[in-house]
Amino acid sequence: MELGRKVERVQKVFKEAKKKFNPPREERMIKVELPEDEIPTSWYNIQADLHKCGMKLPFPTGPGMANLPLIFPPSLLSQELTKDRWVKIPEELMEIYRIWRPTPLYRCKRLEEYLKTPARIYCKSEYVSPPGSHKPNTAVAQAYFNMKDGFEGVTTETGAGQWGSGLCFGAALVGIKCDVFMVRVSYYQKPGRRVMMESWGGRVVPSPSAPPERIYEDMVTETAKKALAEDPNHPGSLGWAISEAIEHALKKPYPLNYSLGSVLNHVLMHQTIVGLEAYKQYELIDEYPDIIFGCTGGGSNHCGQAFPFIKDKLDGKKPDLRIVACEALSCPRLTRPKYIGYDTGDTIGYTPHIWMHSLGCDFVPAKIHAGGLRYHGMAPLLCVLIYSGYHEAQAFPQTEIFEAGRILSMTEGFLTAPETCHCWTGAIREARRCAETGEEKVIHVADSGHGWVDVRGYDEYLKGKLEVLL
Amino acid sequence: MELGRKVERVQKVFKEAKKKFNPPREERMIKVELPEDEIPTSWYNIQADLHKCGMKLPFPTGPGMANLPLIFPPSLLSQELTKDRWVKIPEELMEIYRIWRPTPLYRCKRLEEYLKTPARIYCKSEYVSPPGSHKPNTAVAQAYFNMKDGFEGVTTETGAGQWGSGLCFGAALVGIKCDVFMVRVSYYQKPGRRVMMESWGGRVVPSPSAPPERIYEDMVTETAKKALAEDPNHPGSLGWAISEAIEHALKKPYPLNYSLGSVLNHVLMHQTIVGLEAYKQYELIDEYPDIIFGCTGGGSNHCGQAFPFIKDKLDGKKPDLRIVACEALSCPRLTRPKYIGYDTGDTIGYTPHIWMHSLGCDFVPAKIHAGGLRYHGMAPLLCVLIYSGYHEAQAFPQTEIFEAGRILSMTEGFLTAPETCHCWTGAIREARRCAETGEEKVIHVADSGHGWVDVRGYDEYLKGKLEVLL
Repeated sequence: MELGRKVERVQKVFKEAKKKFNPPREERMIKVELPEDEIPTSWYNIQADLHKCGMKLPFPTGPGMANLPLIFPPSLLSQELTKDRWVKIPEELMEIYRIWRPTPLYRCKRLEEYLKTPARIYCKSEYVSPPGSHKPNTAVAQAYFNMKDGFEGVTTETGAGQWGSGLCFGAALVGIKCDVFMVRVSYYQKPGRRVMMESWGGRVVPSPSAPPERIYEDMVTETAKKALAEDPNHPGSLGWAISEAIEHALKKPYPLNYSLGSVLNHVLMHQTIVGLEAYKQYELIDEYPDIIFGCTGGGSNHCGQAFPFIKDKLDGKKPDLRIVACEALSCPRLTRPKYIGYDTGDTIGYTPHIWMHSLGCDFVPAKIHAGGLRYHGMAPLLCVLIYSGYHEAQAFPQTEIFEAGRILSMTEGFLTAPETCHCWTGAIREARRCAETGEEKVIHVADSGHGWVDVRGYDEYLKGKLEVLL
Repeated sequence: MELGRKVERVQKVFKEAKKKFNPPREERMIKVELPEDEIPTSWYNIQADLHKCGMKLPFPTGPGMANLPLIFPPSLLSQELTKDRWVKIPEELMEIYRIWRPTPLYRCKRLEEYLKTPARIYCKSEYVSPPGSHKPNTAVAQAYFNMKDGFEGVTTETGAGQWGSGLCFGAALVGIKCDVFMVRVSYYQKPGRRVMMESWGGRVVPSPSAPPERIYEDMVTETAKKALAEDPNHPGSLGWAISEAIEHALKKPYPLNYSLGSVLNHVLMHQTIVGLEAYKQYELIDEYPDIIFGCTGGGSNHCGQAFPFIKDKLDGKKPDLRIVACEALSCPRLTRPKYIGYDTGDTIGYTPHIWMHSLGCDFVPAKIHAGGLRYHGMAPLLCVLIYSGYHEAQAFPQTEIFEAGRILSMTEGFLTAPETCHCWTGAIREARRCAETGEEKVIHVADSGHGWVDVRGYDEYLKGKLEVLL
């Protein structure tokens, strides 16, 4: 039959399900799904509403500014700066989103029972994407706009490998190349992550490295030479790897640009597809979160989920809404920043100076397992919201976050990434508070990814050998 | 608002989506979702219809028979033997299924385009379950019935770790213990898999092993002593590990039973929830598969997907339906069996003799990466269907299956388990055939799981170092 009728049939089943409705059955509703054509078709750009918090977004500055047009395609630069509230998602990109979107909004009844809480805990599960995290939401978008603007590839850095995997995945689906500089220690400690990226067509090299270790001649950089001159066995760091990737994009051995997995305005905007979907899902069941928890490395997961709700708060519709950025106690940029002001993002200084809560670009965070939360700075958009008091932040110790992960695996069966465990920790604390006060709060968790490839922390936790890192 | 109304709202959105319908938009339908309460509530038991193929299922025999009531709970034994066509899924178990079910039926348009085929390729994605494969469908059921029958734990063997992970997950959600004997080489080669199992509360030991390596005193077995007497550095095998787990279940240091992840009738029956869902999803879009591909280790993934469709063939409704079991060329039980008849499943001989296509229980398969397909025998229910000609089998070489995996990761973005790549290989061959003949066949793939934890094979393939194993 024609495709139109097929869809009609799908709708009919959902209609008939309604007829069969009886209350005890519906009590059991666990997942709120959206039909495929309810995926949001525009991203939400909070820059249009940010002034309502009483502050303007400080503009980036410094010599790195001159590099921006050289390492980003025009379409993404324009998204970085636009004040348009809604930015249309091109249909070709929607096609790709449909591979894993919409993702379910999941009610964690088993966890609630375990915590004996009257609170209702929901999570938005981004782990169902093929690379297992929220990263593809911006990765496919960045790859797509690079392709549309005529570029043949993207390059980036990666630490634990979530972002590198996401970008290689995105590049593969769009049909462009992806060159990844992977922090040297991770490259050797996590061969699985490297192979994932290579399976999606990526070229992955340890950072820093030189021939013969660096097998792609056109990926050799001056940055790596500097790092290796400092220390021939340099373990690498995210700061160095960013510098390498930017140098690679500036050199352009073929037409390629740099891609960043978080921090920047356009990256956060791409991630709002998650929050916009969740917003619709809550509307469907006539709920609204009282408090939202998201873990924050550079801010993209958390802001992507939270911005569509923060809009209501900025508009004065939901003054009591609480939104909590969750970070590691050992890397407390938001809860105990060294300073709030301009700082650079990389080691060499290729990036502009951006205004943010920072621990200083020379800060060396403790080696916690949540590698994705070990960045010294934070997305400026989030920093403005925190600074203006529209947004809270909490920090959690490593032992408690693995305890939260363990509770989650034993109740709901989700084996969650150490980064993501931070927001679960916040949610569990809050749910326990509700158990004491009797409040029936709606708690939302931005569940950004699974932890299958990063289980070493769980191992140490279960063996009682986890280092207490504050 | 009350829960009933919430559901009404969900249905309404799906209804309204219909109103917005216009043909070009619906062309883009990629996933066929089912509403939550359309999850099948009974399993399909093919034993009720098997006689229609002209053969009876040969009954198991031998001394191992006496062990069955000692290592399986009454409810599962009864499911193993029942001739009832439909077996009701208890509501408490449905609650658990809802954590990840229904899974999407996904139309692989990007793959079709790449293959330039007029065929329509659909896959049923079981990778979205929290442990990442189809295994939880039977794991939670087995754990549940053990719990209901008053047992406090289950024990099993695992090779690559998919089944062990699934069972630990199931046991955690049901609230019982899980003891796993993991083939010794895998235990040390795949610490990640072990930690996953431990995160779900499992006790995992290398098989064979003795104190001090075996830290749980009540898991020490005579079987392990025998194996270690043969070779103090015994690498272990699935056959030895099965014997260990059965001995552990027979000894019952606490009330526990043995669980098997495939081969047995009740295991295949639990997996039919996958095929029954797919059947409904095809009905919704008025499609029906012309040919079904599933990879077969012990047969549970493939049969779970195929049995609800084979029913139509047995009933004479779909005489032309082709169903293809996909196996490794290096372990060709179905395509080149050593013999068809009675054989045991383990090394010591604790299991009954079962009638099957076998390479002989002393067969040592080549060390292909698809560890899950390295079993010497096959589910008797599947063997009867093959023997009677209702069912086909094809075998594929290791290089071709990784090529299929690579095509898949570059087109649809799925990074698929080496085992699962076998059915994709069959599907891709068929789709290419359709490209030549112009046939618009509907090809169904039983996509049983992802390959994130088992990427070593991809690494060798991409480096051109993959061993050609026939």
